[in-house]
Amino acid sequence: MKFVIQRDRLVESVQDVMKAVTSRTTIPILTGIKIIATNEGVTLTGSDSDISIESFIPVEEEGTEIVEVMQPGGIVLQAKFFSEIVKKLPMDTVELEVGNHFQTVIRSGKAEFNLNGLDAEEYPHLPQIEEGNAFKLPTDLLKTMIRQTVFAVSTSETRPILTGVNWKVENGDLSCIATDSHRLAMRKAPIESGHSGEYNVVIPGKSLSELSKILDDTTELVEIVITENQILFKAKHLLFFSRLLEGNYPDTSRLIPSDSKTELTLMSKEFLQAIDRASLLAREGRNNVVKLSTIEEGMIEVSSNSPEIGKVIEQLKSESINGEELKISFSAKYMMDALKALEGTEIHINFTGAMRPFVIRPLHDESILQLILPVRTY
Amino acid sequence: MKFVIQRDRLVESVQDVMKAVTSRTTIPILTGIKIIATNEGVTLTGSDSDISIESFIPVEEEGTEIVEVMQPGGIVLQAKFFSEIVKKLPMDTVELEVGNHFQTVIRSGKAEFNLNGLDAEEYPHLPQIEEGNAFKLPTDLLKTMIRQTVFAVSTSETRPILTGVNWKVENGDLSCIATDSHRLAMRKAPIESGHSGEYNVVIPGKSLSELSKILDDTTELVEIVITENQILFKAKHLLFFSRLLEGNYPDTSRLIPSDSKTELTLMSKEFLQAIDRASLLAREGRNNVVKLSTIEEGMIEVSSNSPEIGKVIEQLKSESINGEELKISFSAKYMMDALKALEGTEIHINFTGAMRPFVIRPLHDESILQLILPVRTY
Repeated sequence: MKFVIQRDRLVESVQDVMKAVTSRTTIPILTGIKIIATNEGVTLTGSDSDISIESFIPVEEEGTEIVEVMQPGGIVLQAKFFSEIVKKLPMDTVELEVGNHFQTVIRSGKAEFNLNGLDAEEYPHLPQIEEGNAFKLPTDLLKTMIRQTVFAVSTSETRPILTGVNWKVENGDLSCIATDSHRLAMRKAPIESGHSGEYNVVIPGKSLSELSKILDDTTELVEIVITENQILFKAKHLLFFSRLLEGNYPDTSRLIPSDSKTELTLMSKEFLQAIDRASLLAREGRNNVVKLSTIEEGMIEVSSNSPEIGKVIEQLKSESINGEELKISFSAKYMMDALKALEGTEIHINFTGAMRPFVIRPLHDESILQLILPVRTY
Repeated sequence: MKFVIQRDRLVESVQDVMKAVTSRTTIPILTGIKIIATNEGVTLTGSDSDISIESFIPVEEEGTEIVEVMQPGGIVLQAKFFSEIVKKLPMDTVELEVGNHFQTVIRSGKAEFNLNGLDAEEYPHLPQIEEGNAFKLPTDLLKTMIRQTVFAVSTSETRPILTGVNWKVENGDLSCIATDSHRLAMRKAPIESGHSGEYNVVIPGKSLSELSKILDDTTELVEIVITENQILFKAKHLLFFSRLLEGNYPDTSRLIPSDSKTELTLMSKEFLQAIDRASLLAREGRNNVVKLSTIEEGMIEVSSNSPEIGKVIEQLKSESINGEELKISFSAKYMMDALKALEGTEIHINFTGAMRPFVIRPLHDESILQLILPVRTY
């Protein structure tokens, strides 16, 4: 194998596939990046066997030559060193040449690296995915839907299924749901028309976080292909494979209360900052709990008390309060996570009593909701 | 005690004195910040007993009122909470009031914090320093001199004196020397005239690093007062005290070779980048060692070899080479630290053989030098 390539494009692709490479793997060759050169271009692959990422650099793009392939072939190079090396090369182009015994020479200007490579044939094959049934989402919407739900997955392995996000495609809508059983995040959006399939799968939260980091904020469509145990995201020159979690995701629809005893409309940013302040002293104490109470004249009070350190109390004007008086305690962290995930300047909270889960939504927007279970404090 | 203060000024001063506060202290009250209000203004103090920092906020500055003191007094508040609170207060002004039992109320807008304070009388007193014999340095020069030397102090406690920087004042010059016995950094500069004292002290590297972080990049003069076991830096509204290290600093002048067998002039940035690349594969191996060799026609070669991973070799054009041929090995990290500390585009290296320390200087500048001991590789 021998090719000359634009350094910046190589660096970019290496950084993308590196997102899938881990040093903690039981399969040694997966600490490497697979590099395949053909007459069409250069393909890089990184994988930790849960996530696999493939990045393609075409020979030519928009009339500009990016790669010159002198001899097709393949090699696997240690990801840690290869990624550091390409970043620090002195010139704008890089020559990569594989000699005997997988010895690989990387040349740029007067700098020359010799790396011990591995046989590309030994690298595990990526899952083969039939492309019958794909649906599409704009990249920026996909990233937003991930951001608004993935933070709520469970980090504990006691119920592995909850470490993933439940994706359901039904009636031309995609809904994403995540819960760690103390709070829940849900976001819905219509998918590009012309698709009639139905899916109900659970995608590891980690896969979605990594995917989100790699994708640019564009409106270009990402093609999504779901099989029995794999999901594939296809963007421009990029394939992102993730395994799916096995098992049934709990039916969360029953958790979401439909009635309401106290309804509150608040300015989102003001409320977030008040919660943040109230939690300053609570972070040390039991679970970072703050208290919200309705008081007279459309005001609410946010407070917390840590006897050894001190207490905080803050009054806030609501946009509207309807229904019963309320005193409720909840995790400040969950509330801040939820408020950050919502868009819009005003939010609406539906309470059904101090001991029942409550629902936070942006005003006049049914496509997203955040649900939090209160904390019993007495 | 009761006063109202501009929040931004309070935040700034709290951040400055926080640099001296540590949570790992055997004196519990030192986890707090001391706040003293007088009719002149508010003074904050933080200390870990090695370093003490005092920041003063005057009642008025340039015709603008910064503090309104309603009742003078003092209190000590938990630094960790107080610093977080003031940063997140909602309004531009803050009211601070101490009630019974050192209960302190912090009010800003509709937010109210109650903190359990401690008696300011219990806070340790700062060292009393007579101000007979001060000398002065511009702030930016002081920061540069710290930056160019402090990285070379020892991080090991086997010879505690080497964890400090040796400051010598002699004949109107200040020289700063740091060494960890594998490399040495030296910087000299004239002090403001009108001073005839002589000093030879050792300042903890950590103190100088913290000082450097607090000082702004201005040309204003810092007044420096040295006593038997303390040094005091006086900037505008800021006092920075550090204890001195006890013991005699080794005489380093004999270490610096005066003769020369091979002399090399190089472009500093180019050389730094080549060393950085050569060290990429060496970082894993034995001590991050790279090799430098003179080759024909004014060229040098920088290389390293890590048998399991691979090898790097890079040729570099020198500006000039004089004297004997040379092959020498040294720590890439020490070389990079030294090159980053030097200013100027070209550097001059004086070698006196492969086993002897060598000296790096900017071209035509005698005020700074970096010395490195080579590594024996065969």
